[in-house]
Amino acid sequence: MRRPSPWWIAPTLVVAAAIGGGDRPDAATTDEAAVRALLGRQAADWNRKDLDAFCDGYWKSPKVVFLSGGDRSDGWDAMRDRYRRNYQAEGKEMGTLAFTDVEVEPLAPGVALARGRWRLIKADGSRPAGLFTLVLRRLPEGWRIVHDHTSIAAAK
Amino acid sequence: MRRPSPWWIAPTLVVAAAIGGGDRPDAATTDEAAVRALLGRQAADWNRKDLDAFCDGYWKSPKVVFLSGGDRSDGWDAMRDRYRRNYQAEGKEMGTLAFTDVEVEPLAPGVALARGRWRLIKADGSRPAGLFTLVLRRLPEGWRIVHDHTSIAAAK
Repeated sequence: MRRPSPWWIAPTLVVAAAIGGGDRPDAATTDEAAVRALLGRQAADWNRKDLDAFCDGYWKSPKVVFLSGGDRSDGWDAMRDRYRRNYQAEGKEMGTLAFTDVEVEPLAPGVALARGRWRLIKADGSRPAGLFTLVLRRLPEGWRIVHDHTSIAAAK
Repeated sequence: MRRPSPWWIAPTLVVAAAIGGGDRPDAATTDEAAVRALLGRQAADWNRKDLDAFCDGYWKSPKVVFLSGGDRSDGWDAMRDRYRRNYQAEGKEMGTLAFTDVEVEPLAPGVALARGRWRLIKADGSRPAGLFTLVLRRLPEGWRIVHDHTSIAAAK
């Protein structure tokens, strides 16, 4: 038998909504947390060599754009192929990825800018690192990267 | 003596608003044109060596962010100083700047993403080139760049 909700459920929800649910600053906080969670998942996916899961953080569309090192990839397939070529082909390795100094700036409801630093630690001893700029949108499937500009710092 | 407006002014304004004034696609077109005009002005300013006018295309705020080559500048002053150091210091030259393959994508009312290629032709024969990502906002003073990620392609 289904038990009825206790009498205090409804007022508690109203108070919870008033405290945390509806107003703009909290929406921004929630969006920022969702974007940070996405980047955290991407780093974890990368570090267990699951490139497809990593690429799931991007808008699965022919219109997603990836800029890096003078090259532009248009579309999710081209972007994933680029990652495979650069990190999973013969003689390549994915290494261990970390994002640091991440900032998330809401631009409008459902649109955010994220920027920060990326760093790879590779078995061959190399330590490529650089900066990234992401534009993200909240889509029906969740927050996704719609534009990525990743650049590499000159080796030091 | 102030002349009264002719009888046809009000209906004409209504028709003009219906044709071109208020709906979203035209607002987006206008915004895109304004962003393109800003980039055009910046290239012209650069090419007559007016770095201050060029920098006027950026949000004059401590919060404007410029990412390039592994370095991050925070604030308009630091960004202008970086440009001066790299392009106007002893032994440096500004060269001739061109933006190509520019795309402007409205993200929300008053917010746009611009991406494209930049190219410098220098008197010393070098041809540095690469990609840029800009986030722009429509501020009271006009459209301004609030985030710039510029990267250089490996020399070919």
